[in-house]
Amino acid sequence: MTIAASRCIRPCLRCYPHKLMSKMRDEIRQQPTALERTLRLELRNVEKLRKRLAANPPRMIVLAARGTSDNAALFGRYLLEIATGIPVALAAPSIFTLYGATLRFDGTLVVAISQSGESTDTNLVLERAKEGGALTIGITNEPESTLARMAEYTFLVRAGKEKSVAATKTYTGQLLMLYLLAYALGARLKLDDLRRLPDWASASLKLEKEIADRAERYRFMTHSVVVGRGLNYANAFEFALKMMETCYVVAERFSSADFLHGPIAMVESSFPVFLFAPGGVTWASMKEMHDKLTSLKAETLLITDASCREAAALDKRRVITVPARLRHAGPLPEEVFTPIPYIIPAQLFAASLAVEKGLDPDQPRTLSKVTRTL
Amino acid sequence: MTIAASRCIRPCLRCYPHKLMSKMRDEIRQQPTALERTLRLELRNVEKLRKRLAANPPRMIVLAARGTSDNAALFGRYLLEIATGIPVALAAPSIFTLYGATLRFDGTLVVAISQSGESTDTNLVLERAKEGGALTIGITNEPESTLARMAEYTFLVRAGKEKSVAATKTYTGQLLMLYLLAYALGARLKLDDLRRLPDWASASLKLEKEIADRAERYRFMTHSVVVGRGLNYANAFEFALKMMETCYVVAERFSSADFLHGPIAMVESSFPVFLFAPGGVTWASMKEMHDKLTSLKAETLLITDASCREAAALDKRRVITVPARLRHAGPLPEEVFTPIPYIIPAQLFAASLAVEKGLDPDQPRTLSKVTRTL
Repeated sequence: MTIAASRCIRPCLRCYPHKLMSKMRDEIRQQPTALERTLRLELRNVEKLRKRLAANPPRMIVLAARGTSDNAALFGRYLLEIATGIPVALAAPSIFTLYGATLRFDGTLVVAISQSGESTDTNLVLERAKEGGALTIGITNEPESTLARMAEYTFLVRAGKEKSVAATKTYTGQLLMLYLLAYALGARLKLDDLRRLPDWASASLKLEKEIADRAERYRFMTHSVVVGRGLNYANAFEFALKMMETCYVVAERFSSADFLHGPIAMVESSFPVFLFAPGGVTWASMKEMHDKLTSLKAETLLITDASCREAAALDKRRVITVPARLRHAGPLPEEVFTPIPYIIPAQLFAASLAVEKGLDPDQPRTLSKVTRTL
Repeated sequence: MTIAASRCIRPCLRCYPHKLMSKMRDEIRQQPTALERTLRLELRNVEKLRKRLAANPPRMIVLAARGTSDNAALFGRYLLEIATGIPVALAAPSIFTLYGATLRFDGTLVVAISQSGESTDTNLVLERAKEGGALTIGITNEPESTLARMAEYTFLVRAGKEKSVAATKTYTGQLLMLYLLAYALGARLKLDDLRRLPDWASASLKLEKEIADRAERYRFMTHSVVVGRGLNYANAFEFALKMMETCYVVAERFSSADFLHGPIAMVESSFPVFLFAPGGVTWASMKEMHDKLTSLKAETLLITDASCREAAALDKRRVITVPARLRHAGPLPEEVFTPIPYIIPAQLFAASLAVEKGLDPDQPRTLSKVTRTL
């Protein structure tokens, strides 16, 4: 008797690679190329802005966005304050759209971020900001959009048309543009480090098979928490959003500090918690959170990278290690370049988990690509 | 044969009133008195600040807080921008505590909000702000706290010692202090309207029995979403936090605009969604959200008040109506005084649901009253 070669009961990359394919996965894979293109084509535009801002730096920065773009803005909020010392606020669009308030915008830089450039409410924030005397910038993937026409300076993400409803390559493209904005604002950020981002993104893509295998374990997960801190806090929001929209998992997102202020009471044995945990100044608080969760018998999965020595001591089954060594030589925080390489395993996880759950990540129920807000 | 008077199988206010009692419920009931006391004792202090700010208004406001106090800050962010036109940012404490960044704080008003006044990270934000030339204000319930000693102006919530881990009376006290801060900043806010808040809070407490009855239906709820918008967006955060910490429900919170940008894909038949829906400018978007959720067969529960005519047409089983008519005559948005009376039914709901679930709302697992952040 011979034993027939067995096939997996679930879609896996080895036996049923076609079942795993989706526009979302395609677009996740396009990220190194997209990042390289953005950097190459937008740099001149950025240098022009840098000259103008050097003569007249803003006193305050306001970032306006919704959905995934708002998660990118949350990253920008940390990066820009840390790297430039200029206070940053995230706009609450309803202040303008519903309450019709007029804010004092003199000396302010207002940046609207939108994949489509057609988000009605963030566009209205930009319009009011312009009327109020702010310098305005638009960051969008669509050169012919309303936002691109309206902003004084427009930066194009140049990720190529994004077809999946779940945004991936435009998120990392927006993060890259926010590094470039920090550079334009005089941050001591080396362009050579930014030029390594496409390679670092490629290294993360090597995790594709490992993550597809790991996703199986979460087949029946209905809820979860994602924890991030500082520069990776935005990634917690973005990972949770990907799980909500493509896997229908009720995914919460917290900073490790806020999680301790109440919500951690939810955690019981086997509660799934994902943590973004690079080496550097946030490590101690993420490690403390990890240990606390372990004592509560939570099911943790920690995303880190090859340069984080502290993470190497942890149980391998509880860790996803981005293979790149995400170090840099500049004066910015040690983990400043981790957000792009770290979100990629999370995107892959959501795309794989959707398939495990029998869902099509490209067509989440109830959603459409461009959301117009009342 | 006679039929014995039946007793409920669950703790209800009629049969087992003692089982429903908790410090949390006591403190919820203390709110009208606490609000009246705060207003009476702090007004002189507020008038002093008003004079100083009239001569030298800030260009920007930064609010720093954690947990429930951060939810109050989120309310302040909307109120202060709408009522004063001064841009407001919510501080990200890790910018200072972990990254050691130095921000330009000239012309800035920095407000730290903390029940205990011992939150290490928000206190550090205040310290850095002071060094950077900001005018500093502390809002706390503890007159002898570090925060009270450190801030240039201190406002006391005067809610009386808060014994329950789940904050309730200090949240509404902090909201009241933020109205007073708006007044100090020159907002066209009538003190007579603020003086009606204790009565409006009392009216909400009349819902106690109705809400205890309604909570039974949610005995087995494991997850939910709370939606708010504008001035009630903070209440969505606070209601969700109360459900997370006292009922261990995985409770998400969104503005109706953000909910449409992806997370709504989670909603399937019977998915529980709570909505804060006053009359006024946010009504149309909340009604649109309500109708969308109804078409998805979600289980909605809408919190509104007796002055909202539009809500009267909805299915009564889906609506909690605060009995007060929360109208005012001033130039501020129609629903500006709804957040305090609206959070009270939500607090009562969490306190009742905890008991339905057999939990002690005063002693959530894993938590302690003062959280010190690494």
